[in-house]
Amino acid sequence: MTDGRHHSEDEPFVEVAETVSVEDEHVADLMSHTIDILALATAVTKQKAADAADTLEDLPDDEAAEVIELMEDQSAADALAEMEVPLAVTIIEDLSEDSRTKYASTLLALLAPDDAVSIIRGLDVEYIEPLFVSMPVGYARKLRQLCDYKEESAAGIMTTDFVSLFKEMTITEVVEVLREKELPEHVQDLPVIDKSDKLVGVVSLRALLIGLSEATVSEIMEHKVAAVHSDTDREQVAREFDRYGYEMLPVVDASDRLLGIITVDDVIDIIEEEQTEDVQKTVGAGAGEAVYSGVGEKLKGRMPWLLVSAVMMLPATYVVLGFESMIKEFALLAVFMPLIAALAGNAGHQALAVTLRGIVLDEVRPDRIFPLIRRELVVGLVTGTAIGSIVALLLWLFGNGALETRLGLIFACAMIVSMGISTLTGAAIPLVMKRIGADPAQASAIFLIMITDAVAFSTLLGFAWLTLQWMQGI
Amino acid sequence: MTDGRHHSEDEPFVEVAETVSVEDEHVADLMSHTIDILALATAVTKQKAADAADTLEDLPDDEAAEVIELMEDQSAADALAEMEVPLAVTIIEDLSEDSRTKYASTLLALLAPDDAVSIIRGLDVEYIEPLFVSMPVGYARKLRQLCDYKEESAAGIMTTDFVSLFKEMTITEVVEVLREKELPEHVQDLPVIDKSDKLVGVVSLRALLIGLSEATVSEIMEHKVAAVHSDTDREQVAREFDRYGYEMLPVVDASDRLLGIITVDDVIDIIEEEQTEDVQKTVGAGAGEAVYSGVGEKLKGRMPWLLVSAVMMLPATYVVLGFESMIKEFALLAVFMPLIAALAGNAGHQALAVTLRGIVLDEVRPDRIFPLIRRELVVGLVTGTAIGSIVALLLWLFGNGALETRLGLIFACAMIVSMGISTLTGAAIPLVMKRIGADPAQASAIFLIMITDAVAFSTLLGFAWLTLQWMQGI
Repeated sequence: MTDGRHHSEDEPFVEVAETVSVEDEHVADLMSHTIDILALATAVTKQKAADAADTLEDLPDDEAAEVIELMEDQSAADALAEMEVPLAVTIIEDLSEDSRTKYASTLLALLAPDDAVSIIRGLDVEYIEPLFVSMPVGYARKLRQLCDYKEESAAGIMTTDFVSLFKEMTITEVVEVLREKELPEHVQDLPVIDKSDKLVGVVSLRALLIGLSEATVSEIMEHKVAAVHSDTDREQVAREFDRYGYEMLPVVDASDRLLGIITVDDVIDIIEEEQTEDVQKTVGAGAGEAVYSGVGEKLKGRMPWLLVSAVMMLPATYVVLGFESMIKEFALLAVFMPLIAALAGNAGHQALAVTLRGIVLDEVRPDRIFPLIRRELVVGLVTGTAIGSIVALLLWLFGNGALETRLGLIFACAMIVSMGISTLTGAAIPLVMKRIGADPAQASAIFLIMITDAVAFSTLLGFAWLTLQWMQGI
Repeated sequence: MTDGRHHSEDEPFVEVAETVSVEDEHVADLMSHTIDILALATAVTKQKAADAADTLEDLPDDEAAEVIELMEDQSAADALAEMEVPLAVTIIEDLSEDSRTKYASTLLALLAPDDAVSIIRGLDVEYIEPLFVSMPVGYARKLRQLCDYKEESAAGIMTTDFVSLFKEMTITEVVEVLREKELPEHVQDLPVIDKSDKLVGVVSLRALLIGLSEATVSEIMEHKVAAVHSDTDREQVAREFDRYGYEMLPVVDASDRLLGIITVDDVIDIIEEEQTEDVQKTVGAGAGEAVYSGVGEKLKGRMPWLLVSAVMMLPATYVVLGFESMIKEFALLAVFMPLIAALAGNAGHQALAVTLRGIVLDEVRPDRIFPLIRRELVVGLVTGTAIGSIVALLLWLFGNGALETRLGLIFACAMIVSMGISTLTGAAIPLVMKRIGADPAQASAIFLIMITDAVAFSTLLGFAWLTLQWMQGI
């Protein structure tokens, strides 16, 4: 709604998602022509948490810390939760350095425990203990416990901020509990436990709502509950959510005792992260590398794969070396080498990307791998024929004589063979990696380029060598 | 639980996610040594919908259709909803061909309307009308209407199978309604409308549960509602869900009338699809291409970009052509060309992947683009120096004389420059594309290779040319 209408609290107000809200405009306005931190803090407090986080991210780090200090505690905490973790870490560290440890710990205590933990994990060790000390003892103990779980496990992403019910409670009693306790967002199913904390069921809000008030929880709950163990990998957790459409999964320990819950909104972030990680892995950038990682971390992730890639180029280099004297004679071959290598590599990449996507989206059915491979081969042969013919035709039309025409024919033949092999290889690499139990994405692009380059040079130079007398006969 | 314990319906049973269920084992067992379709159908009926869909996908298409026919209607429909759309389409078409149109339309009518529509969109035109005719008139009209919306819009993914409340209802009345109507999964917030179907609020199940039974919906509802317009792009819808952590968004028309709702589980699929599309786009495979798309469709998506890629190789080819006579003299240069091009290309790809990821995860802050670019440049220079030195050292140690040593030095210098420029380019391309309003992913890998190849060849051959007298002086 950009028409400037203002609505009082009790008047219905439908806010359609793609419009810029009045609050956002006000903030943009303030940021453009004032450095009045107090006014800005008041305005940011009124933004939605995700938008407030954006505003703070756009400020220099120290100004962001100043604004956070002046915001209402709960709004500040909400914005902190939505922010890139590294910035949130910087802000908490800034506050701690300014002897505002108490305020920093208040903010952390206002966060959902899982969000607090991901910030604490990023803090410099020296800041952590003072923060725990100035927190309420019980909450500090809870956070310490959560920090002990592995970051990539189900327990590492669960929240302990949830409401669970005892199976003996009546609906009337449940309603009393819910009137007192705030339910976290995104929760419509409540876990049910017995006296020894063991998970025994889940009950939906709908069932509670339509049930008779004297019914007990165990009468209306689902007895068959899906749950995950605390040490399950978080990627596996994300797959379970996606596959079975869960909204919430309880996390249990080895004796089925309830430890926490994972909600679908946390899982969306994981799916995004894991998928974009896959792309980085194909080219051998470290899976954990973020755009603002330090140079050292970037190097640590990438350098090994670049070295592997250098070693992997040996076959292609060796092929060219074998034909050194022929290249001396027909240096024009060296002109075609990059062209055929780039096109074969690109065609292979296309096949690789499509196949990886099929694997990620779980569409590659084991009994239909052969048709997939065959289809890619056909695509390679057809595109190779088309592009090879065009280049040969151009050389015949605009070349300086018989040598160019003959080279064009050789190029076209080499193109067909190497494009065919490249698409085949692009589709096969992730399938083979998956079959042998490796990560289909890991360094797949690097393996691909080794093969496509070696094939492209072998076929081009090989065909030229086979027809050497014909070429020399000009 | 693989210990073989069996649980009666009312005994608590926690099923931890990663184990294979008794039902799945039974199906695997049946599939391995019998072709008793009836037994299989009975067993598949007992599986979870997503697992049943998997089982059916593993069968030949005609057998899958036979099994579906013998399954309980609701289980068959649930499996159909979970299945790859092309297979579901094939099954409905098979049923229609066997004059089982009535059964096919029964299955479609049991699906959530959004799932039914995505199958209908895939059907051959001849099958659609007969299916609509054998459906209840009201339901057919609803589906027809949904089919009219654009597939990529909010309306194309919304479901019309939801419960809405009138704002004048009391909680007691709402409970009556909910006792009669099944709530769709994943719904904890119910949209509230007025007499003219206009969306005026949402009310959560929790608010209904803890509210007093004589309160009216408008007293306990949220008046400020986020919603999307029916023609909003579905990618935009997915972004809204991810950003603000919505569980459900109502879809409204231009006059704020409620048309349907979008739930978070549909959005997870969209996020997955859109992200994997991005990878395909970088190498110029069609965004919509699936692993089992036909050869024609694959060619249509890829061929144009391969042609673009051929044209884009002209600068690199031109560079090499310019140095033809020098290559005749030092054919060893042609041996190093693929090595430097592949390494520069790979380093550039790493920078590209990391930057694209940063953009997708919304981490690239406009005021911090310069540090990002600088960091990538440093990474390129460092890796170039390292790998260049190693190659130069190896050539000095194992080469056949002064020529190899000098070529090694030239190679090392060329490597440093071209790796630096490549990482810089890899980071810059998606940023520039984004700045000019283009899709940062589209064909970015193709642009990248054009630049890295041209740079790699120019620097290698350029440095060799500058030191020509030194090399000839051996």
